[in-house]
Amino acid sequence: MKPVSLKQVRLHDSFWSPYQKLVSDTVLPYQEKILNDEVPGAEKSHALANFRIAAGLEQGEFYGMVFQDSDVAKWLEAAAYSLWVHPDPALEQRAEAVIDIVEKAQQPDGYLDTYFTIKEPEHRWQNLLEGHELYCMGHMMEAAAAWYEVTGKDKLLRVAERMAGHIANVFGPDRYGIPGHEEIEVGLLRLYQVTGKASYLDLAMYFLNARGERPDFFKEEKARRDFSIFDMAPANTAYNQSFAPVREQSSAEGHAVRAVYLYRAMADAAGATGDEGLRKACRRLMDSIRNRKMYVTGAIGSSGELESFSKDYDLPGDRAYAETCAQIGLVFFAKSMLDLEPDGRYADLMERCLYNSTISGMQMDGKHFFYVNPLETNPGLSGEVFGMRHVLPERPGWYQCACCPPNLARMILSLGRCGWSEGEDTIFVHLYLGQTAELALARVAVESGYPWEGKVKLTVTPRERKRFMLALHVPGYLNSADFQVLCNGQPSDGVVEMGYFYLDRTWSHGDTVELSFPLKPRRVYGTVRCLDTVGKAALERGPIVYCFEETDNGSQLQALLLRRDAAIEEVLETGGVLAGTVTLAVDGLREADSDILYDTKPPARSAARLKAVPYYLWGNRGLGQMRVWLREG
Amino acid sequence: MKPVSLKQVRLHDSFWSPYQKLVSDTVLPYQEKILNDEVPGAEKSHALANFRIAAGLEQGEFYGMVFQDSDVAKWLEAAAYSLWVHPDPALEQRAEAVIDIVEKAQQPDGYLDTYFTIKEPEHRWQNLLEGHELYCMGHMMEAAAAWYEVTGKDKLLRVAERMAGHIANVFGPDRYGIPGHEEIEVGLLRLYQVTGKASYLDLAMYFLNARGERPDFFKEEKARRDFSIFDMAPANTAYNQSFAPVREQSSAEGHAVRAVYLYRAMADAAGATGDEGLRKACRRLMDSIRNRKMYVTGAIGSSGELESFSKDYDLPGDRAYAETCAQIGLVFFAKSMLDLEPDGRYADLMERCLYNSTISGMQMDGKHFFYVNPLETNPGLSGEVFGMRHVLPERPGWYQCACCPPNLARMILSLGRCGWSEGEDTIFVHLYLGQTAELALARVAVESGYPWEGKVKLTVTPRERKRFMLALHVPGYLNSADFQVLCNGQPSDGVVEMGYFYLDRTWSHGDTVELSFPLKPRRVYGTVRCLDTVGKAALERGPIVYCFEETDNGSQLQALLLRRDAAIEEVLETGGVLAGTVTLAVDGLREADSDILYDTKPPARSAARLKAVPYYLWGNRGLGQMRVWLREG
Repeated sequence: MKPVSLKQVRLHDSFWSPYQKLVSDTVLPYQEKILNDEVPGAEKSHALANFRIAAGLEQGEFYGMVFQDSDVAKWLEAAAYSLWVHPDPALEQRAEAVIDIVEKAQQPDGYLDTYFTIKEPEHRWQNLLEGHELYCMGHMMEAAAAWYEVTGKDKLLRVAERMAGHIANVFGPDRYGIPGHEEIEVGLLRLYQVTGKASYLDLAMYFLNARGERPDFFKEEKARRDFSIFDMAPANTAYNQSFAPVREQSSAEGHAVRAVYLYRAMADAAGATGDEGLRKACRRLMDSIRNRKMYVTGAIGSSGELESFSKDYDLPGDRAYAETCAQIGLVFFAKSMLDLEPDGRYADLMERCLYNSTISGMQMDGKHFFYVNPLETNPGLSGEVFGMRHVLPERPGWYQCACCPPNLARMILSLGRCGWSEGEDTIFVHLYLGQTAELALARVAVESGYPWEGKVKLTVTPRERKRFMLALHVPGYLNSADFQVLCNGQPSDGVVEMGYFYLDRTWSHGDTVELSFPLKPRRVYGTVRCLDTVGKAALERGPIVYCFEETDNGSQLQALLLRRDAAIEEVLETGGVLAGTVTLAVDGLREADSDILYDTKPPARSAARLKAVPYYLWGNRGLGQMRVWLREG
Repeated sequence: MKPVSLKQVRLHDSFWSPYQKLVSDTVLPYQEKILNDEVPGAEKSHALANFRIAAGLEQGEFYGMVFQDSDVAKWLEAAAYSLWVHPDPALEQRAEAVIDIVEKAQQPDGYLDTYFTIKEPEHRWQNLLEGHELYCMGHMMEAAAAWYEVTGKDKLLRVAERMAGHIANVFGPDRYGIPGHEEIEVGLLRLYQVTGKASYLDLAMYFLNARGERPDFFKEEKARRDFSIFDMAPANTAYNQSFAPVREQSSAEGHAVRAVYLYRAMADAAGATGDEGLRKACRRLMDSIRNRKMYVTGAIGSSGELESFSKDYDLPGDRAYAETCAQIGLVFFAKSMLDLEPDGRYADLMERCLYNSTISGMQMDGKHFFYVNPLETNPGLSGEVFGMRHVLPERPGWYQCACCPPNLARMILSLGRCGWSEGEDTIFVHLYLGQTAELALARVAVESGYPWEGKVKLTVTPRERKRFMLALHVPGYLNSADFQVLCNGQPSDGVVEMGYFYLDRTWSHGDTVELSFPLKPRRVYGTVRCLDTVGKAALERGPIVYCFEETDNGSQLQALLLRRDAAIEEVLETGGVLAGTVTLAVDGLREADSDILYDTKPPARSAARLKAVPYYLWGNRGLGQMRVWLREG
């Protein structure tokens, strides 16, 4: 199968289009101001100034994180997508001015990293553990591929190709090296996708194959150098997934963002090369995440230490790290797996992340962001006591280490890419977004009531009258019998396999496929292996995970219980930030407050009507407790 | 009321005498070897070597923690108590040899601290925040008072008095100073108790009054010095209780051991001076602990960060710090409160600590110790993942920072002091230990089945035929109507006030008082304000808190539920480490294991017979899960 490119898809979705507008109208312009240090009171970024200094356009010192360059790259990438979604010649012009600076900052040999160029030119490539050079260049490659795809202009692409050429000269059989933070692999594979040049695939394969081949590499590197950036421990080989060759890895370990960026590249590389070892490793790693290391919201990286995966089933809700960027990386990994092999469980997982723990990272004003996406917050403890200092109960503004907001921006603006895969004789529909896709086999127009309604209508316009399959994702929360398909108004009984309904027919101009499936609220239970959720239930409806907030349910959410058998009422909200969403109301119990710390009488219980709202919207209505899981009784 | 001294009491208690034997036979000799660096494989202590070097008896460098001297002091104090409990001329001789070295290490001006004497003599008294000089000297004063009380020999007492004189010369109105770790106040008050010299009380009052008077003191001190030991933040004035004058403090804050050492001194000083402000502050701080900051086991200092109190009701079981030393300090604080004012709640709290979270610190072999006393452990997570690294699921051997083992030793060996207070016309019995006390009003001999049986017999031999009151603690878990008292075989109806049964009569030689009260197992519930215990119950019987261990209940303790109304069966154990204890058996439920992380079906439940064992014995039968609180259902 071939990945579908963004320019094949136009989104007009009642759920996502407003998000895209918010990003284009608010997030990107705000980030642009940040990059230019034009937001009074915001932490200094200096990211563009670093490029200007490295380009010799102005005098000054490097300022910011060692990976500050990636902020510019991610903004450029998102800006490219934005131009496709919301054409804007002025933005295009400003972005081109940035690209001009980036080009000038590139060194004659193709090297491009402002930290080392300005600050420590003598230390180039000597601290791969901490230096983030390959990480930043990988992001610039992604930006270049996006810019080229959308605008057809190749200035940044040529920068990226010179970069790739330089990297190929530095690393290889004669000089071993792997990045301390994966991303170059993805960047090279994107370059390969847009140019078709095998050398980029080869270089990506080099980095994939090299990882874990010499587990002591970072230790040796550290022994050779007399400088340090973070004083990072090279012995923690799990942190950057260098503990074993990638084909031998079975458990998702270490820094979650690093991990899923690697896994995505492994999946893309497996697709490009047919490498079975990589494909099998990807499957095992996906299983590790999905079956043992993922929150019900799709969030990953539960450890508050080093933004990492923890042990199997260790998924504390109130101490979650669950970084927005990790979930975004997981969306991309899942999409790459779908391009590799159609398995509806990947689409389920992608949905779970998209509708819950990715967009929960952004306030609906587009100006406040969570890095950490907990499943339970308790103001007074969250953000304040040991083990929870990283868990903020409200979204703060832009951070200096601004990885998550631009990452969200690029995910949201490029979402059109995620909904489709296309094979020789099959069109796969992974996500039910309102959109029109220009595919090789057909134009497919989709109208969708998703995620609030299980009603989707597809209109298929084949390039020519031809027999091929339309493979429609059957959400994993459904019984496949409940997935009803009408083709041109007639019941259609395709084959359901691995989570897809295969509709095999000879298609004619204007054929319609209407899907309807029930989105009934449901209770979800964690395995007892998961200490944090035992005895509790969460509520879901369609792809949406719900949570309980203090503003709807009063204080002391921990005192509330769901009644196991009570009917769950669906309420279509009409006002405020909840407008247009379906919230849930259900009978429950409240245990009485007491100032007696330990008592021989259990707390008295009284009836309570509970309200659950979509998790992704939590924290948009003031400070208060929040929790996804409630006790049942 | 006057505190009762150890030499007035002989213990012959079926519960505690074996502990005293274990300490005298095993813990103290082992610690003695440690102090002498004679245990192969153990971390180097060097504590006695430091004294020898400071004494000029040998050459070398200081080694160990800055407070290493206190190990020797605590050993000497415990050795003194041991000589009372188990006379041992050889031990006495060896301890005297140590005292000789300590005396020689004292400087001509009375200063005694081997760290500064050997290593940084120019920095004496310049780093009170970190230096621990007053802490170590306070412990040496406690040792001196104990040694003098038990042996009547005053060599160490004279060392202590010279120390006190030196300190009085250094600190006072002309030079402000307070210790970064409280203890000198207790030491000085002990010196005052055994010598009656008001100057020691005055100096203790100086340090109490000075604390919090200049909240910026440690900051100013740090600004003055150009050296550091721990790089401790002087801004954290809660850590060492210097955020406010002690009479204005209402919430137990900061490092829990520091806090309760301070509070004990405040209570002792309030008793010695009649200071109402101190007494009221002690009451408020006691309420803060008992009502909002104490685990059901009596443990305190719940935060894994800085061994500190956390916020009200923040009492996580699996991330508890709950340091053994903090509970020991709380026992002493409670005893001092009982000497100040008879309130049965202090005796309840003392019992709760004594029978649960103090002795849980020691393995029944006397060779392995917990600093941290969690209420829940999950091997694989405990001690291994973020937020739980400090929570070990098994007791390790002796630590280099050996504060808790010798502290336990001195508490256990001096327990006789804790059971009694005596006023002009009242004898208070706080603890039902098998013992004989030689008090001013009478000799009282006690036979006790406690804590397993609610049967206690007291035989009173008054010094002269005289009317006075015997005030008998009515445990807080009883209805006072269930506390039955026979005097010379006849039902006796005294007055119950503030948790004491006052038996007012003219006593004759050989009068007997027989107490009987039911020790029925009971369920305990935490307030819903406590996030960690909500929906759960713990089991208690008499003063004993119970826990569930994997060895009795199988794995996945989190899958177990107690049935709320099921009868609790009491089982008198006859074998192994549990022999002689009462364990509990109760019907419960087990939720089925599943490898499905999130499921729409709740886990199936099946009947299970559950066994609970005394918490203090946990971890004596191999590695496995443990938890005090189980869900109810």
